[in-house]
Amino acid sequence: MSLNRKLRMALIGGGPGAFIGDVHSKAARMDGKIELVAGAFSRDPAKSRAAGRLYLVDPQRVYGSYEELIEKEKELSEEERVDFVTITTPNHLHFPIAKACLKAGFHVMCEKPMTLTAKEAKALRAVVRRSGLVFGLMHNYTGYPMVKLARDIIRQGDLGELRKVVVQYPQGWLTDPQEKSGSKQAGWRTDPARSGAAGAIGDIGTHAENLSEYLTGLKITELCADISTFVKGRRLDDDGNCLVHFEKGVKGLLHVSQIANGEENGLAIWIYGSTKGLEWHQENPNYLSIKDYKGPVHIWRRGNPYIGEKSAAAGRASRLPFGHPEGFIEAFANVYVNFADTLGARLAGENADPLMLDFPTVDDGLRGMLFIETVLDSARRKTKWTKMHS
Amino acid sequence: MSLNRKLRMALIGGGPGAFIGDVHSKAARMDGKIELVAGAFSRDPAKSRAAGRLYLVDPQRVYGSYEELIEKEKELSEEERVDFVTITTPNHLHFPIAKACLKAGFHVMCEKPMTLTAKEAKALRAVVRRSGLVFGLMHNYTGYPMVKLARDIIRQGDLGELRKVVVQYPQGWLTDPQEKSGSKQAGWRTDPARSGAAGAIGDIGTHAENLSEYLTGLKITELCADISTFVKGRRLDDDGNCLVHFEKGVKGLLHVSQIANGEENGLAIWIYGSTKGLEWHQENPNYLSIKDYKGPVHIWRRGNPYIGEKSAAAGRASRLPFGHPEGFIEAFANVYVNFADTLGARLAGENADPLMLDFPTVDDGLRGMLFIETVLDSARRKTKWTKMHS
Amino acid sequence: MSLNRKLRMALIGGGPGAFIGDVHSKAARMDGKIELVAGAFSRDPAKSRAAGRLYLVDPQRVYGSYEELIEKEKELSEEERVDFVTITTPNHLHFPIAKACLKAGFHVMCEKPMTLTAKEAKALRAVVRRSGLVFGLMHNYTGYPMVKLARDIIRQGDLGELRKVVVQYPQGWLTDPQEKSGSKQAGWRTDPARSGAAGAIGDIGTHAENLSEYLTGLKITELCADISTFVKGRRLDDDGNCLVHFEKGVKGLLHVSQIANGEENGLAIWIYGSTKGLEWHQENPNYLSIKDYKGPVHIWRRGNPYIGEKSAAAGRASRLPFGHPEGFIEAFANVYVNFADTLGARLAGENADPLMLDFPTVDDGLRGMLFIETVLDSARRKTKWTKMHS
Amino acid sequence: MSLNRKLRMALIGGGPGAFIGDVHSKAARMDGKIELVAGAFSRDPAKSRAAGRLYLVDPQRVYGSYEELIEKEKELSEEERVDFVTITTPNHLHFPIAKACLKAGFHVMCEKPMTLTAKEAKALRAVVRRSGLVFGLMHNYTGYPMVKLARDIIRQGDLGELRKVVVQYPQGWLTDPQEKSGSKQAGWRTDPARSGAAGAIGDIGTHAENLSEYLTGLKITELCADISTFVKGRRLDDDGNCLVHFEKGVKGLLHVSQIANGEENGLAIWIYGSTKGLEWHQENPNYLSIKDYKGPVHIWRRGNPYIGEKSAAAGRASRLPFGHPEGFIEAFANVYVNFADTLGARLAGENADPLMLDFPTVDDGLRGMLFIETVLDSARRKTKWTKMHS
Repeated sequence: MSLNRKLRMALIGGGPGAFIGDVHSKAARMDGKIELVAGAFSRDPAKSRAAGRLYLVDPQRVYGSYEELIEKEKELSEEERVDFVTITTPNHLHFPIAKACLKAGFHVMCEKPMTLTAKEAKALRAVVRRSGLVFGLMHNYTGYPMVKLARDIIRQGDLGELRKVVVQYPQGWLTDPQEKSGSKQAGWRTDPARSGAAGAIGDIGTHAENLSEYLTGLKITELCADISTFVKGRRLDDDGNCLVHFEKGVKGLLHVSQIANGEENGLAIWIYGSTKGLEWHQENPNYLSIKDYKGPVHIWRRGNPYIGEKSAAAGRASRLPFGHPEGFIEAFANVYVNFADTLGARLAGENADPLMLDFPTVDDGLRGMLFIETVLDSARRKTKWTKMHS
Repeated sequence: MSLNRKLRMALIGGGPGAFIGDVHSKAARMDGKIELVAGAFSRDPAKSRAAGRLYLVDPQRVYGSYEELIEKEKELSEEERVDFVTITTPNHLHFPIAKACLKAGFHVMCEKPMTLTAKEAKALRAVVRRSGLVFGLMHNYTGYPMVKLARDIIRQGDLGELRKVVVQYPQGWLTDPQEKSGSKQAGWRTDPARSGAAGAIGDIGTHAENLSEYLTGLKITELCADISTFVKGRRLDDDGNCLVHFEKGVKGLLHVSQIANGEENGLAIWIYGSTKGLEWHQENPNYLSIKDYKGPVHIWRRGNPYIGEKSAAAGRASRLPFGHPEGFIEAFANVYVNFADTLGARLAGENADPLMLDFPTVDDGLRGMLFIETVLDSARRKTKWTKMHS
Repeated sequence: MSLNRKLRMALIGGGPGAFIGDVHSKAARMDGKIELVAGAFSRDPAKSRAAGRLYLVDPQRVYGSYEELIEKEKELSEEERVDFVTITTPNHLHFPIAKACLKAGFHVMCEKPMTLTAKEAKALRAVVRRSGLVFGLMHNYTGYPMVKLARDIIRQGDLGELRKVVVQYPQGWLTDPQEKSGSKQAGWRTDPARSGAAGAIGDIGTHAENLSEYLTGLKITELCADISTFVKGRRLDDDGNCLVHFEKGVKGLLHVSQIANGEENGLAIWIYGSTKGLEWHQENPNYLSIKDYKGPVHIWRRGNPYIGEKSAAAGRASRLPFGHPEGFIEAFANVYVNFADTLGARLAGENADPLMLDFPTVDDGLRGMLFIETVLDSARRKTKWTKMHS
Repeated sequence: MSLNRKLRMALIGGGPGAFIGDVHSKAARMDGKIELVAGAFSRDPAKSRAAGRLYLVDPQRVYGSYEELIEKEKELSEEERVDFVTITTPNHLHFPIAKACLKAGFHVMCEKPMTLTAKEAKALRAVVRRSGLVFGLMHNYTGYPMVKLARDIIRQGDLGELRKVVVQYPQGWLTDPQEKSGSKQAGWRTDPARSGAAGAIGDIGTHAENLSEYLTGLKITELCADISTFVKGRRLDDDGNCLVHFEKGVKGLLHVSQIANGEENGLAIWIYGSTKGLEWHQENPNYLSIKDYKGPVHIWRRGNPYIGEKSAAAGRASRLPFGHPEGFIEAFANVYVNFADTLGARLAGENADPLMLDFPTVDDGLRGMLFIETVLDSARRKTKWTKMHS
């Protein structure tokens, strides 16, 4: 980007004990394009200040609420006030905060799920469109270079006509009722008031949905869901299995769990076409398998020149040469890089390169909410297929 | 077994170009308990004779049909005639041949699927029961030592209360219409007259079903199926995805494919319980992962003393010490060993040790046929769940 | 082979508690080309008879010594007496028994190491040459199809000019002094009188040496050894590390251990050339990696048509289609198949196909003994390099 | 650290096309404890300015030489001038720049190898000691959490008495003479004037040496080296194999290569003790295998509570929960975190927590130079063992 300065970021959420706010700050900072200069880290002013000290943010710009943040930052000069706000609060606050920030003229990066309902998501989409501002949604897994490579391999037709998709996201960390033993993470994720109507389906099912649609370029058209709550007393689903149909006759399965005991973040996808198949695992993300029944399996390895030749997006998304493993934060940071470059171009009065625009948007956020609602609807029905509308 | 001689086996099927007949002969022979002494290897007498020469079977005992085999073998003295018949013909012949052999007093080892329909399966079960003879069904994958270990770990309660099962059997070898380019294997497997009403679901879905029921000790009670034929002109399904419910509230997915391009024999299973989870892959069968969210993953390795201490069945099913990989034929041979030891005990007038009885029977064969019919029924329905009756 | 009968085999050694005799019997029997009809399973006649009952060998042909076996079998008619003798006794008996069998006109299959010294090995080579008989040495690891594929890939020049070889065989089973707690296997393997002057170097170092020379087609010309006995009171080395030089300027490392705690049979090899590199692991033997720095890694998978097209030897050495794992016994059996086909051709008065001749011979056995002696010699020296002569 | 501000860093080197300078800037920045505020990115002022624009450093503080940087920064007020200097130039400049920075009172973080000779290294050690300043050396691989876990597992005695170490660092990227086709990386790394007397041994051999000494807590006492230059015309070694002896009778192998065609950054280590063995691979760094011959292999997975309970250093070195892979930059950043916390404590007038002191120092740098010189010396000798002195 030709903007000759770092973008100024505010963080809402991310107070003590928060996992994802800290990841946002590290990822945003990594590439030297963004600096964290303000925050409303907690609704508890003391906690917000404590977090501000850890983040080394100027105490003057540590706020006790998002409303205060918006108000005070607007009063600052253009040279000083934040360019964009990152929202990492519990899910139920995403929508009101995003709306308020956009209305105040701040660009936004929002954690997923974007809102609590599809209705809210559509409303937010309207706000974003009217505002003309840059809105990014943190579906971090599509930031992995090998995911971008996989998408481009599919786009270039190397898999032939797509036929089948298997996507999974098994976790085991909610095998026991951790929400009852004081885990903050488990607490809000299993609380309908803060997480929304879905548990595992919302938290990680949307990642599986987003990854499969991103890679195939196809939308899920209908699905058949079987969701469960295995841990007694838990108020949201902790396991979900779906038969799915995509556009163009592609079929598949999507399954997620938080009681898959012993699994960590086993997001993985297999896509089979008439010419080749592919396989990718989030926990070993630097490798992509491309295979057919006619010759040796090909293992593509991140960071090599041949990767960039095949996929400019994958090449651009790698910081390190081959053999130096990149991980979760780098994928996360790739979303920020594209968001920042798009925003930087905007602020510099330039057009963003199409490669910069490769980050999740409000449309992805809406797809996620539609997915959640379709799964919940299907799970209640006795009929096999439930349509997923756009 | 204390029977002081080798068991005499006849092979029906297994002529030139057959894959599974050859595997049966090698597996049966491996442990020195069985000798192949007769066969009706093909309906074409010249081909049967040619196969007989390869198998080094006495030409006097190479027959042109199973009827002839039964008739002529019955005329031989008890010291000479075969003890049992192995049936490896295309599927549609399993039932009539098995019935005829049993009625003639021969014990039987039958390839799966056992029959073409559940009705035939029930009829055969009645014949077996009336005959009092030993009947084995070749569900070879349960012959793997680490599968037996997994079953015993579950039986001993180490996984806690079972919750979720994911079982898959992806293959890619029918990605193209191989049946139209002269592949004998592809030919009969995609022909309803020879294979029955199901393709992938019958050929490999039954393996997935059998493996999951064997390991969990639980029966599938209902399922929701989505089956497809992706290759144009193919007459049977080449892909199938099912949501499944087991007894005791266990839920899961079962999916198989013959168009999963680049997959070979990717039979694999994940079982999650309240205490631990497990994972096993047929293509790397000497290892079993046991894991939870509280400590390191444990990789159990075949052939070690601690395996036999945990599971007598797994210990018994290993021929080689740790680190010397065992594979498909050894698993296959383990079914024969237990079948042979059970039969040998019978012939010696002794009781079979319970460990010997650990081989698939006519009941497993019936479960397989019920599974196929339930899947096909569900696939036609618009309602979500279809019961699988016993 | 066009010999219209099974070859008749006698087994010397392989009594109760023996590991390798049992493997020989299973491997020899698997393909239906060989039947075990006689044996001197133990020097203790009662134990020999007991083993004979397990092997279901005619008690008339169970002998109390190899001398008796030779004498009595020679008295039998040509139609009855054994064609060849397999020797699986402790190492120190290989030489005298092999010599006696050859002198009596029996073909021989011998376990490795072939003799106790290079001098004996040369003497045995002379006996074999004079006899004109078929002599096989059981270096089983070169029986793996993917090893044959690797050799042919190298022969065809795909790796370019070879540069570096790393070969290892770590085991951990002698981490503690098992020889003092009654382990029969550990007992003779750590006893110089029965095993020879080397421990790990003899038992598994020779496998590493044989594998590297077989694959590269190059001989080790000199080496620099560092051998150790880590377990107190043990009389032979249990660990050995060597720098090695091969013909044509190829360099490398060869290291083995029996105190590599937690390793099982970690035989593995990496060969790097100017065009490509390769990697193969015995414990996951159905896969071969071929790689360079310019494109994706290629994983060749056993049992596919493209394997046989690249390497007739590898194609011939596979019994099962892709995805059905083959293991140690099948590799072992492949040595027997080639030995049997060569012997069968001989007995049928035909020439053996070159593919049949692909089994280890007395020359490999001599290389092994030279390797052991060179390592021991080097280990004693203060100079860096010790030549390994032919 | 209780220093209530970010540390100010200057970067020397890291101009256009440099790999490692960029990694330093990202790693230093990631955790929000350090800001890059000045640099002499290249000796070419235009290039230095261009790099400064990319790094978004104030043009006033982008210098044309390290001398200028030191001079101008010293003139700044204490509140403004840099706290420390990171040196990422080609190897031959490390020593003079480090010395000059230390003499000017700046703390230093230096890329490895620390100097060109052991003599320089000793001189630098004396300078560091006299200065009383904080000096860090970027041996990044010891920054991996699972490496710290492994070290602590060994320290706690879980492996028993150590016996054998195998450490390797194979790369393939210099398989061809890339230095002749314009690769900047290949150019200086194969140039004795800029890299020193060793090629692969210096560049990556020192990593293998450092990792093995860090993990075992033992020093290499003597070694026997065989080094080669396989690519014609190359002026430094591109392959090296060593037998090594450590203190306390531990033996092993250390081998590295830059012509191991198809390998990327295959740094890996196996350590065997009387009670257990361990295995770790840099390319899949989130997992550590602990194994013995008595029970299942244990796979420890980064980011779990049980990791931090076993090793406070490993717990502290993880940013992300289990299943979110961390990689090379995070390990790198861990060195910076400990360096920054130590420096921050110093500047705040506090004592550094021992955990903060866990980063490589001038002593590690000297060990590396001694290793290089010992290997080169050994490679020239005809005697087997060459001592490595402290």
